[in-house]
Amino acid sequence: MKPSETAIPDSMLASYLDGIETITLRRVGVPVALDGQVLVRVEAVGVCGSDVHYFDHGRIGEYVADAPIILGHEAAGVVVGVGANVSRDRLGERVAVEPQQPCRRCAHCKSGHYNLCSAIVFLATPPHDGAFTQYLRVDADFAHTIPDALSFEEAALCEPLSVAIWASRKAAIVAGSRVLITGAGPIGLITTQVARSFGAAEVIVSDPFQSRRDAALYYGATAVVDPASRDVAETADGVDVFIDASGSARAISSGIHALAPLGRAVLVGSGTTAADVPISRIQQRELQLTGVFRYANTWPLAIDMVARGVIDLASLVTARFSLDEVDSALRAGKQPVNVKSIVLPQRRTARL
Amino acid sequence: MKPSETAIPDSMLASYLDGIETITLRRVGVPVALDGQVLVRVEAVGVCGSDVHYFDHGRIGEYVADAPIILGHEAAGVVVGVGANVSRDRLGERVAVEPQQPCRRCAHCKSGHYNLCSAIVFLATPPHDGAFTQYLRVDADFAHTIPDALSFEEAALCEPLSVAIWASRKAAIVAGSRVLITGAGPIGLITTQVARSFGAAEVIVSDPFQSRRDAALYYGATAVVDPASRDVAETADGVDVFIDASGSARAISSGIHALAPLGRAVLVGSGTTAADVPISRIQQRELQLTGVFRYANTWPLAIDMVARGVIDLASLVTARFSLDEVDSALRAGKQPVNVKSIVLPQRRTARL
Amino acid sequence: MKPSETAIPDSMLASYLDGIETITLRRVGVPVALDGQVLVRVEAVGVCGSDVHYFDHGRIGEYVADAPIILGHEAAGVVVGVGANVSRDRLGERVAVEPQQPCRRCAHCKSGHYNLCSAIVFLATPPHDGAFTQYLRVDADFAHTIPDALSFEEAALCEPLSVAIWASRKAAIVAGSRVLITGAGPIGLITTQVARSFGAAEVIVSDPFQSRRDAALYYGATAVVDPASRDVAETADGVDVFIDASGSARAISSGIHALAPLGRAVLVGSGTTAADVPISRIQQRELQLTGVFRYANTWPLAIDMVARGVIDLASLVTARFSLDEVDSALRAGKQPVNVKSIVLPQRRTARL
Amino acid sequence: MKPSETAIPDSMLASYLDGIETITLRRVGVPVALDGQVLVRVEAVGVCGSDVHYFDHGRIGEYVADAPIILGHEAAGVVVGVGANVSRDRLGERVAVEPQQPCRRCAHCKSGHYNLCSAIVFLATPPHDGAFTQYLRVDADFAHTIPDALSFEEAALCEPLSVAIWASRKAAIVAGSRVLITGAGPIGLITTQVARSFGAAEVIVSDPFQSRRDAALYYGATAVVDPASRDVAETADGVDVFIDASGSARAISSGIHALAPLGRAVLVGSGTTAADVPISRIQQRELQLTGVFRYANTWPLAIDMVARGVIDLASLVTARFSLDEVDSALRAGKQPVNVKSIVLPQRRTARL
Repeated sequence: MKPSETAIPDSMLASYLDGIETITLRRVGVPVALDGQVLVRVEAVGVCGSDVHYFDHGRIGEYVADAPIILGHEAAGVVVGVGANVSRDRLGERVAVEPQQPCRRCAHCKSGHYNLCSAIVFLATPPHDGAFTQYLRVDADFAHTIPDALSFEEAALCEPLSVAIWASRKAAIVAGSRVLITGAGPIGLITTQVARSFGAAEVIVSDPFQSRRDAALYYGATAVVDPASRDVAETADGVDVFIDASGSARAISSGIHALAPLGRAVLVGSGTTAADVPISRIQQRELQLTGVFRYANTWPLAIDMVARGVIDLASLVTARFSLDEVDSALRAGKQPVNVKSIVLPQRRTARL
Repeated sequence: MKPSETAIPDSMLASYLDGIETITLRRVGVPVALDGQVLVRVEAVGVCGSDVHYFDHGRIGEYVADAPIILGHEAAGVVVGVGANVSRDRLGERVAVEPQQPCRRCAHCKSGHYNLCSAIVFLATPPHDGAFTQYLRVDADFAHTIPDALSFEEAALCEPLSVAIWASRKAAIVAGSRVLITGAGPIGLITTQVARSFGAAEVIVSDPFQSRRDAALYYGATAVVDPASRDVAETADGVDVFIDASGSARAISSGIHALAPLGRAVLVGSGTTAADVPISRIQQRELQLTGVFRYANTWPLAIDMVARGVIDLASLVTARFSLDEVDSALRAGKQPVNVKSIVLPQRRTARL
Repeated sequence: MKPSETAIPDSMLASYLDGIETITLRRVGVPVALDGQVLVRVEAVGVCGSDVHYFDHGRIGEYVADAPIILGHEAAGVVVGVGANVSRDRLGERVAVEPQQPCRRCAHCKSGHYNLCSAIVFLATPPHDGAFTQYLRVDADFAHTIPDALSFEEAALCEPLSVAIWASRKAAIVAGSRVLITGAGPIGLITTQVARSFGAAEVIVSDPFQSRRDAALYYGATAVVDPASRDVAETADGVDVFIDASGSARAISSGIHALAPLGRAVLVGSGTTAADVPISRIQQRELQLTGVFRYANTWPLAIDMVARGVIDLASLVTARFSLDEVDSALRAGKQPVNVKSIVLPQRRTARL
Repeated sequence: MKPSETAIPDSMLASYLDGIETITLRRVGVPVALDGQVLVRVEAVGVCGSDVHYFDHGRIGEYVADAPIILGHEAAGVVVGVGANVSRDRLGERVAVEPQQPCRRCAHCKSGHYNLCSAIVFLATPPHDGAFTQYLRVDADFAHTIPDALSFEEAALCEPLSVAIWASRKAAIVAGSRVLITGAGPIGLITTQVARSFGAAEVIVSDPFQSRRDAALYYGATAVVDPASRDVAETADGVDVFIDASGSARAISSGIHALAPLGRAVLVGSGTTAADVPISRIQQRELQLTGVFRYANTWPLAIDMVARGVIDLASLVTARFSLDEVDSALRAGKQPVNVKSIVLPQRRTARL
């Protein structure tokens, strides 16, 4: 039997960032699904580095969290309500949430690049609230149905998997590619897996932490390198693809130097606003340098790859928190030994 | 009647760079066309900025002219000799010289990227001699037959036209593209024309010299801007394509900032070894940055476009010199008011 | 002063196809612009071959006009009303209508291929009414603003121009391409112009009618051929691109045989359900064969090219009709000497 | 110690096709490696359907074996001699032979499409001899070094693997693709593996023989279908890619009907000169149809994938023959139960 909409409560708990390192749990009204939307009962939300960055600094570049804001944008849950023009058949569906809502009418949206829509609403990017809450409304077609094979945690992690897929597509990784990935945090580790699933023959991963390099090997890296003790450009010399998942200017420079002629560099890691790029190298080798901004049309593949067992997201989860522990979840996200923290908004705790 | 090979003299004049700002004319033996080659009587050679740079500094980056070297690589002439395995029908043909000789056997050569062949021989790049001489041997398929419609000067200038075509292909200029070109020297002016011939709707050209901006308008720029008095990024805001033909770090930075989302930047101008590239901009707009190294498979189109009158190369020539005036030709190349100097190796002068 | 919405009358005239060769003018209610839509007062509508086909046969393949239907889908006019969520600033704008309304939510819509949306509403395709009427409601972003440089007739003909642009994009026509176009009706003639504007070096046009071949030469064909007297494959031997705008099985076969290795064939003309395709030729030359279905993201370029004078649509118009003369307009569309008929829904006649 | 060239005998055995179904073993002179070539002692040669076709009919389309010809073009062996301009370091190398010798100078060769070179020399294509012999000369860069991990049989089968790679590249198979392959002979079975290694989510294989369908499942097909009992287009409805490895007109038609919008069909199987192609389907779904002719730049990936264990070629071999058993090897190639026969030219038998 499909759940009915009457199961939706009047109020819900939501975790707000009220200021730097200040998290407050509040009870607020449950949102209503608008035309074309579904209401999702949130079951799992991943903690992303960007959430941690807002927690620590109150801003990311030009995006300033100057009012209380709900963080979290890696979400999954169950459809418990539908707005106008959405089939009631969707009630009860388990879904992975693609955390964006483009305008659908601009040139970018209509040409397949909706991630570049200037009017986009993105979860947990000021001034829009995110997913560290119990209910969320989402455009129906951005609430992607998942099969039973996926847990809610895996479904939530289809978001960082989408980042990795998008980067790997931009990098045009194909069968036989030799790939360098700098940074073995969650994005680097998932990109390692995606690169292998795209057919990469070699995936060399660079990270200064031993535990992360070990994890990279576990997830399919064919070699790892400690940038503190060896020259990355030399170790990975002649790669076809370089994906930076570290945001380090030094890593970016090393990676570009490692590329073979016609090599592609894709910058995923944030934090570097400008880097000293070797122009003459880019010219003499006709290298291509680009960056990624979110993703588009990745969820179907992400879900499919996890369902087929090609990508392992479950083992990335190192800690789980209830909604009143978001503060701890964000602090945990800062530890290099930690890979991925998950917030479970429906988990009952002593305090809820 | 076809000219016979007996017309080839035993010796020829060649202009050598013996050291910084030191040009010497010498009489040397005429080369012999080897297997698969033709011998070309050189009729016109353009003076390129790289020739001037070797003249001034004795080197370009890692390429050091530490022994006497013949400069010049923009050449055209007449086939007067053929090596083994080349049809004698080619004798008498007027040709534009593509100044490179790739190995034809490496992965780059076999995949269509012979310009990136690491074993390539390139005219006037140390230690290989160039074209400021009376006879030149060239791989037969790199001596491209030209129709009567082309003068030797135009044929010689198919070399910078090839640079412009290659850059425009890399930039994926298509009908309706909005293009920014920084630098209105010969490459910038020819790229302006190529961009228009590829269907660009707008070509905005930036250059600090009034005379060059005027030339850009003459060659089809839809707008020009003086970077000393106006902000280029603002003037050209939202272009799809940015081609740098200046080699200026400031121009590169401005151009990248002018690009619309998914915009492509192609760096042609040399001289900048490193530039401060706005990484976060490249990410947020998913810009693509690349550079060009010479060209591949451009001569047929170059010749065709000049023959059809789509590209005007003839009016770019501002001065002509005989072989004993190479020193003057190189000095003329430094003047911003000058566009293109041509050396005519067969021209008789009092001194020859 | 912007026109106010009060200028919209209660009723309007619309021309219905009631059955084969049976056109009836009726007075009906004016539609109301819905959420995200504009109401357009229709000023000019082109007559397309598909309109004529419905008039003659009551169907096109699986699309059956079994109820009265308003034909016409090449439309332009003035915005006289706006629905919810559309700025009133649009009132008074002159617009070219892109006659489709995709769902915006399916995989095709979100990846830039909205023309392949299975839920699309397309003007004058049963069961949806078209534009041979006085008012039309259109999704706001599919009512493309035109500059003063465009007449309404030219704006209406941005529809067949879009077909030509889409085909030329699919065919990857670039600077220097050699192109064969079979069929010199409106689509063939406009594609001839588009191919030239994309930089094609040669455009060879085949058509059995002398007047159409003359028109092709007028619009930029570099050569024409009468397929009744000469072999098209031989005349156009070695072209890079073949675009069929005739729908003739014989033309398709000839065109494929004319292609050089790696050549692209794009089938635009309708009417052929199956053709005998030379498989071994496609293999030995690695030819690519594809077809087009409507278009996506073409209006901005279409409008821009007409405004810049690159494409001449105005001179294609050979006859004009008022709304009570749609029957005559459709009959005129059958004459090969005719190029393009236009219906002017606001034109006052004795009978209206 | 490197083997010396003195190990090369004066004469060798070669198996000639003297007429339809007439094979004769003869003793002939050993060829001499020319400039840029190596001499290969042939250790293993696969039997291809085209060899069988020449054996049965004396011709393939326009290629007529009207003089005695050595068949066989799937070869591997050891470098035992080098011509001028080839390093003696290559002596003793184990190599996989790419059986083509392009001109390296035409537009196709220089743009990376050397398989379309009109002056190409291809093994066992009249009038050029093939590999059912003991020594073979090959352009040095087309004798691809193999690691110890590959047997000579696997190295020989890098040829059909190259066909599969080339087809999969043309089909743009990527992670998540849904693929239909018609025909489960050697090419179909290897393409099944390649499709999976490129990340295909589904590979549906159609073949009328149960044993071949079983083999397809063994090599990674996610589903199989018997075209005699079920409708292929319906079973594989909505695939992204269709690769025909059967050469059957009926299979081609079914496969095209199975494709989703924007689907790509790649025709590999030979034997069909023309097929009834559903033009309106190609248009309405904007399908792309192309074919393959041999391959280019595939051996490095082929060798790498076999060495990494991604592709299993060894288990495809069902029978081995000595050079005096080529007749039997060719007859074995006709049995559907047989997958791949190998000729071992150095094997000693009673008769040799």
